Amino acid sequence: MAATKTYLTGIQTSGQPHLGNYIGAINPALAAAQSADSLYFLADYHSLNSVKDPAVLRENVRSVAATWLACGLDPERTCLYRQSSIPEVFELTLILASVTSKGLMNRAHAYKAARDRNTAAGVADLDSGVNMGLFNYPILMAADILVMETDLVPVGRDQAQHIEYAADIAGAFNHLYGGSYAFPIPKGVYPEGEGSILPGIDGRKMSKSYDNHIPLFVPEKQLRKLVRRITTDSTPVEAPKDPDTSVPFQLLAQFADAERTADVRKRLEAGGMGWGTLKDELFDVLTTLIAPMRDRYDALMAPGSELDAILDSGAERARERSRATLAKVRAAIGID
Amino acid sequence: MAATKTYLTGIQTSGQPHLGNYIGAINPALAAAQSADSLYFLADYHSLNSVKDPAVLRENVRSVAATWLACGLDPERTCLYRQSSIPEVFELTLILASVTSKGLMNRAHAYKAARDRNTAAGVADLDSGVNMGLFNYPILMAADILVMETDLVPVGRDQAQHIEYAADIAGAFNHLYGGSYAFPIPKGVYPEGEGSILPGIDGRKMSKSYDNHIPLFVPEKQLRKLVRRITTDSTPVEAPKDPDTSVPFQLLAQFADAERTADVRKRLEAGGMGWGTLKDELFDVLTTLIAPMRDRYDALMAPGSELDAILDSGAERARERSRATLAKVRAAIGID
Repeated sequence: MAATKTYLTGIQTSGQPHLGNYIGAINPALAAAQSADSLYFLADYHSLNSVKDPAVLRENVRSVAATWLACGLDPERTCLYRQSSIPEVFELTLILASVTSKGLMNRAHAYKAARDRNTAAGVADLDSGVNMGLFNYPILMAADILVMETDLVPVGRDQAQHIEYAADIAGAFNHLYGGSYAFPIPKGVYPEGEGSILPGIDGRKMSKSYDNHIPLFVPEKQLRKLVRRITTDSTPVEAPKDPDTSVPFQLLAQFADAERTADVRKRLEAGGMGWGTLKDELFDVLTTLIAPMRDRYDALMAPGSELDAILDSGAERARERSRATLAKVRAAIGID
Repeated sequence: MAATKTYLTGIQTSGQPHLGNYIGAINPALAAAQSADSLYFLADYHSLNSVKDPAVLRENVRSVAATWLACGLDPERTCLYRQSSIPEVFELTLILASVTSKGLMNRAHAYKAARDRNTAAGVADLDSGVNMGLFNYPILMAADILVMETDLVPVGRDQAQHIEYAADIAGAFNHLYGGSYAFPIPKGVYPEGEGSILPGIDGRKMSKSYDNHIPLFVPEKQLRKLVRRITTDSTPVEAPKDPDTSVPFQLLAQFADAERTADVRKRLEAGGMGWGTLKDELFDVLTTLIAPMRDRYDALMAPGSELDAILDSGAERARERSRATLAKVRAAIGID
């Protein structure tokens, strides 16, 4: 047991991140895991359950890795690696399956949601469209966590069940084999309060599935165009406006500093600031923040960049941990 | 596509084999796969679903490996390896899960049998006692087969569903990714007729679960004792006897050559041959066959024997295949 706690953050690789991911996931994760012992992995095998086009899968993984690095993840101080670079994860998945009851998986949220969708659609076979990757997902996630002997997992509250399952599965293993080896029991680290939900350009929660998102690293011209399209009401320029019901203002408040936010609020409430001017302010705030990150992103995405070397180095360091864990686990179960 | 077909035989490692395993599984498998390209693997991770004692698991794997070698498996001409030595199997299991529908697993025989046992026992939760290792078993078995690009799998008819599932899963993968890589579709090779079922010492099918079995490599003294305990009726020595309803004769017929079997049949039918004499004949047949194999078995089981080196060499050769397959599969799915 090291005195320093080990943090592990799983990164979904389901496509190019947008502003909502930056505020809701990337920024809090980078802030939460400021420990000396932080690991971040790109969950490429998780995404295989939904992404069946190899070119898309490949591009998504590179894009998401480049995004996190561009947003400030320090690959020297932390460890960034692809899930698929750690063979010990797959072997541990198999081992953990042998101590995991099927009943636990039957109650998993993602699986139950898929059944609910079938019920709602009037599909008689509730397992229709469910693949075994989805059904096994919580075991794979437990292996991701346990193979690194993780103590703390910074995640959104919607992921709490996965951490509880990882803890349950670790407990089941420890109960059976704890005389020889016991996993540290992982704990979730959840954001204070409800967490930030960013509105999309139509005012609903920003989400790719609503097609209302602003990609984090679109070219400047397209960024301006998307900001222009953000929904507003027809209040005339001269009239006082309520910042708290204004979508562009809610976006601005998440990205601007406190002083600038207060200033814009005052101008909106006083009247005389039109939506067009507010959107210009928002664009300025966004482009000032994003432009340097986008440059870094573009450099990392260019062919021949250091991106692969960074991921390889992360994988090498991560495998020192995973190999050590698996050797102990194998000895405990009698496979050695 | 090599001209030579690849045979793969999975070996259960659930404890020291008995005479019934020799006649029903070991001997037919060694005979069936006389190809130049035969692979045999010890399914140690399968047994983890039931064996939770590391010392027992370890001993079972060694004992079963030594048994097959003692029974004539040639580790130079074929390839004998532990399942747990092939990390590519575990990664492929994960990949195959993403193209395997849960519905297929719901219909698997072993899983349905577990539910039927719960139904029969009046247990309300039909998944009670089912672990995810059991539920995922057919996917792991498909990975065992497909990672070696297997063409033919010699198995008992009770295993036919597993081969059909492996073929189905390979088909699903090929349908999605076949443009880049396609698995050969494996086929089962089933014994002619019903296959040989050996009676145990109480006359029922020889099985550990009936506790009526004769371990293949018990010491000679114990073998004699077990043969003495084989069930017979009270027909007097002088009376003619029906060989086809005699348990010792059924055993003898499986192990003696045709000439000796015919001779003993004639003596029984003529009268004058008592059960004790028949059992002496049976013991003689068994011990003549078994003694040299048992010597080889004992030598392999001794500490410091060449057993580990044989298994390591097999694993090394098997991994050349599994690495090559996984590299092609990874490129096809976009994980590379």
